Amino acid sequence: MAVSVVLSLIKELRRTLGRENVLSAHSELVVYECDGYTIEKNRPDAVVFPQSTEQVATVVRIANEHNVPVVARGAGTSLAGGCLPLGGGVVVMLTRMRRILQVDLRNRLAVVEAGVLNLQLARALAGTGYHFAPDPSSQGACTIGGNVATNAGGPHTLKYGVTVNHVLGLEVVLGDGSVLALGPVHNPAGLDLLGVLVGSEGTLAIVTKIWVRLTPNPQDYRTLRVIFDTLDSASNAVSDIIGEGIIPAAMELMDRGIIGALEEAYQFGFPLDAEAILVIELDGPSAGLDRQKEQVVEICRRQGAREVLQAATAQERQMLWKCRKAAAGALGRLSSSYCTQDGVVPRTRLPHILRRIVEIGRAHRVRVVNVAHAGDGNVHPVLLFDERDKEEVHRVLAAGRALLEECIACGGSVTAEHGIGVEKIELMTSLFAEPDLEAMRHVRSAMNPGGRLGPGKVLPSP
Amino acid sequence: MAVSVVLSLIKELRRTLGRENVLSAHSELVVYECDGYTIEKNRPDAVVFPQSTEQVATVVRIANEHNVPVVARGAGTSLAGGCLPLGGGVVVMLTRMRRILQVDLRNRLAVVEAGVLNLQLARALAGTGYHFAPDPSSQGACTIGGNVATNAGGPHTLKYGVTVNHVLGLEVVLGDGSVLALGPVHNPAGLDLLGVLVGSEGTLAIVTKIWVRLTPNPQDYRTLRVIFDTLDSASNAVSDIIGEGIIPAAMELMDRGIIGALEEAYQFGFPLDAEAILVIELDGPSAGLDRQKEQVVEICRRQGAREVLQAATAQERQMLWKCRKAAAGALGRLSSSYCTQDGVVPRTRLPHILRRIVEIGRAHRVRVVNVAHAGDGNVHPVLLFDERDKEEVHRVLAAGRALLEECIACGGSVTAEHGIGVEKIELMTSLFAEPDLEAMRHVRSAMNPGGRLGPGKVLPSP
Repeated sequence: MAVSVVLSLIKELRRTLGRENVLSAHSELVVYECDGYTIEKNRPDAVVFPQSTEQVATVVRIANEHNVPVVARGAGTSLAGGCLPLGGGVVVMLTRMRRILQVDLRNRLAVVEAGVLNLQLARALAGTGYHFAPDPSSQGACTIGGNVATNAGGPHTLKYGVTVNHVLGLEVVLGDGSVLALGPVHNPAGLDLLGVLVGSEGTLAIVTKIWVRLTPNPQDYRTLRVIFDTLDSASNAVSDIIGEGIIPAAMELMDRGIIGALEEAYQFGFPLDAEAILVIELDGPSAGLDRQKEQVVEICRRQGAREVLQAATAQERQMLWKCRKAAAGALGRLSSSYCTQDGVVPRTRLPHILRRIVEIGRAHRVRVVNVAHAGDGNVHPVLLFDERDKEEVHRVLAAGRALLEECIACGGSVTAEHGIGVEKIELMTSLFAEPDLEAMRHVRSAMNPGGRLGPGKVLPSP
Repeated sequence: MAVSVVLSLIKELRRTLGRENVLSAHSELVVYECDGYTIEKNRPDAVVFPQSTEQVATVVRIANEHNVPVVARGAGTSLAGGCLPLGGGVVVMLTRMRRILQVDLRNRLAVVEAGVLNLQLARALAGTGYHFAPDPSSQGACTIGGNVATNAGGPHTLKYGVTVNHVLGLEVVLGDGSVLALGPVHNPAGLDLLGVLVGSEGTLAIVTKIWVRLTPNPQDYRTLRVIFDTLDSASNAVSDIIGEGIIPAAMELMDRGIIGALEEAYQFGFPLDAEAILVIELDGPSAGLDRQKEQVVEICRRQGAREVLQAATAQERQMLWKCRKAAAGALGRLSSSYCTQDGVVPRTRLPHILRRIVEIGRAHRVRVVNVAHAGDGNVHPVLLFDERDKEEVHRVLAAGRALLEECIACGGSVTAEHGIGVEKIELMTSLFAEPDLEAMRHVRSAMNPGGRLGPGKVLPSP
């Protein structure tokens, strides 16, 4: 970008938002050159911290006048480069818009600014008997705005659905800087733009305010840790449980590689020779749970489960979840860099895809370990590497691509919850026919006419 | 429309679909001049019965060549004129596309053609342990395609959500005749156009095939009929139950007028002096249900319930539901014509809106009786009239408008499940700001470029 344009842009941003809300020094910008997907990097020209929807709209208008891209960013936990400022321009940080504006239990909703942390909302709701259902593994860091941008899921997606199932309304800034209030609460009339906005990764609009549905806390839980000798028997158990008409709150799978990493980091006492662990959680009214649990245990045993452990106390339950949610953290023990993939297949194809992931890793000489929201058919193979080894990075990219293509071949998709970002944009043409992509492009042009919001994300150029 | 255009249109349609699949005689067309909303009528130029997506696409292309509107129609149960062929043109009947293509329990989905009846799918799933959750009161007649077009709800929406929460994929024909397959099953990547298509009332595309999510049947039910002396106490009970963190499967309200009509028609044994009846259904694993039921009963008693009756057998439960679902049929006892409105308010405003409905009816000298999906804050005032009395029809329209405006003033909306159709299009400008409508129009143009799909529906002209 021409230096004169950048200087004018920064001057204008500072004038409107105040000097303290605009970063432009090289040393400051470098922090924003990538997100949780570290393989691609690009530096923005400016980073701004608006504090209201109006300020976001102003930033979009200023960026439009300078013809530069605008990329929204929450906590930057995207694993697909969703916050990568491709082409430079302005990164709009929503982290200072972090007020919980309303909690209304009788109407089962809360109103939050986009920068509110998922965990912050969870804490604010503690004791009310309600919660916000989407609980990504990055729950402690990620923002609700980010959850909306990627239509985030999490372990409890199996029973409770993804973010779009819990969004009642949005306030957004469109590509031309106009502000829309969409469907707050009881507004299902007209064309429902909520669905297309949720998961659009900032390519249609910047979300500033969110009306979320609250879900009553289950009365009770039964949380099981089931150990299997083979990946096959674990994934067959998953499929059998659903086939039986039981929808657990969560069914999480961890493979031997993850078990080893967790064990090394935290000493949970996992058997190191087991090929798979399932964490299965049932929830609902207390009284019905034991029978359901027994059914699940029986199915697991029939599939050859070696050991079934039930969390006896709330604390033990927390511990089981901690070991699952700490998996990402423990990976640092295995490798200096890693890339978490996000494929999804019909759950009956789980045994197949898990076998293929092992084979693909081997063929590309990449070490792969697996966590999965198995109940959803959502696999998260983690590819371990050293980012200083360029040749290895190439092999990681090729292996990632191969395994996502295998997901497509199974009737699945290249993302269940992380989004397309910049990482998977080339795969979109394998996943969709050209008329489908063209229809999406038309809709994008309708809401983001200049194409300056989130360029190079989600939709490949024709 | 010029006679020559109509003749050429019909000739071309007959040539492509076969003579037996095209209606064009006046006596045949008159059947299609309105749907369940009988206040406005208009005759189409032709009615066609395609049997495949390709045939639908062909019809759209032929209509485009003749520059005439295309209106999709299922069973014609719309209560808002959603199937009214405004401006004439071609009505595309989807009722011969009625095959259930697949039932896949392990992946919890079914694939159906748009013309499959809601009840037909329910029957096909009997004994599998799964069901399709949306259950509009018109369940016995309405099609799944119609459910998608209006994003239909029903009594069990309270716990299970509306149609969009149960649609996994769509095959659609866009306004230019191109065919899209959107998101079958595991395709959440890209811009999710499902959300905006569901509920778009045929103004973006014609839906031909639907992948629906299947929901496990609850293990057990507790179904209560609770009689209240006042509407206020009934609606306060609804609000208190939700406030307590209990989400019943359904909470349906019927007022004195409906009770009288039902009693006259079917002799269920309702007390004629009660002002309100709630039908409350709890579902889930058997064992937990009784405690929850006791909580609900206690809340109802606290609000002054006169009588609480529990269905003791599956048959009694069916009977309680029959009396609720038969309400529309019983209305014929009260009046030769009626118009069912569809307002929605935050459920805490239920007592207010029910009082206001009575006042508005009185002010416009229109007899109004009420059924409501009370748990959702969704009221269905039924305005009774004689369609031969033009002056009365005017008063009915004015009263309907007044009560929907009251819903907007309460922070609610003019439709929860019936859609905008032609009936409420003028209210859209009260409900939405101009930039919101403009954004919707942009999206409509993106998918329905010539504007020939469902003209005059949903979005008012700028």
